[in-house]
Amino acid sequence: MDARELKTYIVEVPDFPKPGISFKDITPVLKSPAAYRFVIDRMHDEFKDRGVDLVLGVESRGFLFGAPLAVKLGKGFIPVRKPGKLPRERISASYALEYGVDALEVHRDAVRDGQKVVLVDDVLATGGTIAACAQLVRKLGGEVVGVAFLMELSFLSGRDKLEGEHVFSVVQY
Amino acid sequence: MDARELKTYIVEVPDFPKPGISFKDITPVLKSPAAYRFVIDRMHDEFKDRGVDLVLGVESRGFLFGAPLAVKLGKGFIPVRKPGKLPRERISASYALEYGVDALEVHRDAVRDGQKVVLVDDVLATGGTIAACAQLVRKLGGEVVGVAFLMELSFLSGRDKLEGEHVFSVVQY
Repeated sequence: MDARELKTYIVEVPDFPKPGISFKDITPVLKSPAAYRFVIDRMHDEFKDRGVDLVLGVESRGFLFGAPLAVKLGKGFIPVRKPGKLPRERISASYALEYGVDALEVHRDAVRDGQKVVLVDDVLATGGTIAACAQLVRKLGGEVVGVAFLMELSFLSGRDKLEGEHVFSVVQY
Repeated sequence: MDARELKTYIVEVPDFPKPGISFKDITPVLKSPAAYRFVIDRMHDEFKDRGVDLVLGVESRGFLFGAPLAVKLGKGFIPVRKPGKLPRERISASYALEYGVDALEVHRDAVRDGQKVVLVDDVLATGGTIAACAQLVRKLGGEVVGVAFLMELSFLSGRDKLEGEHVFSVVQY
């Protein structure tokens, strides 16, 4: 497996979720043990020597890569969730959608002062979601040591919203 | 770590999501590398010799245990999702909620005839969700070799809906 072969497991679905949008389906990556393991191994190699304390994953596709990465690194996992899902005291950050805004929440005790956190999601598109996560981690006193994605849609310039971050993506479009 | 110690990482939150309900928060399990690894190791030991081809996880907390289990077993992962999230041809199954019904979807090509699937979720409560997942797998010609949960709320008798299945839970209440 290499990045080029991995791309054969990412399937373009035209007109989803609406006409004119081409959706990149990652379920074939998950279904292939070799492809899935390759992604987790690449993220692991990238962050294993960066002193990571915690892996943060964004609901819900970020869980698919962040959770196995946390287990493989032997570190804790922090779920960032849609509003109303987390039961204890939490903080939230909002981010812009194409039309309107959305919000993400994390438990207030998820990160301690000075802890080093890597943020994981499936896709880097415009970068709004992951920038909101970085904001949550910093509000709690944590340090963002990097952000990791299965794929990066370079033409959407998401890196511009992540200036100063260590950005890692396994494949790029 | 043992099952008794693991329970100290499952935190009761009274009156969530509504008054009178006591919610069991699993985020401290995820945050503890030892507790999280213990859960995945226990599931792995239970299913490693059962000829599993695929691990199925239920959106979204089932992803947190199913995804690392799939990677550790070296098998593929199948996400079962809320309606409207999966982009390609899919099938659905509905299940009863306290008031009303809900549905879950899986891609039609997720499971091939005769493949052996283990189903994973965080909690076995009344069993409706996981029974719907078993129905989806069988509709696609797959064989359910077992179901695995972090915790089982025995007083809700979810096992009654899973008669004939191999049911495994790491801790019970």
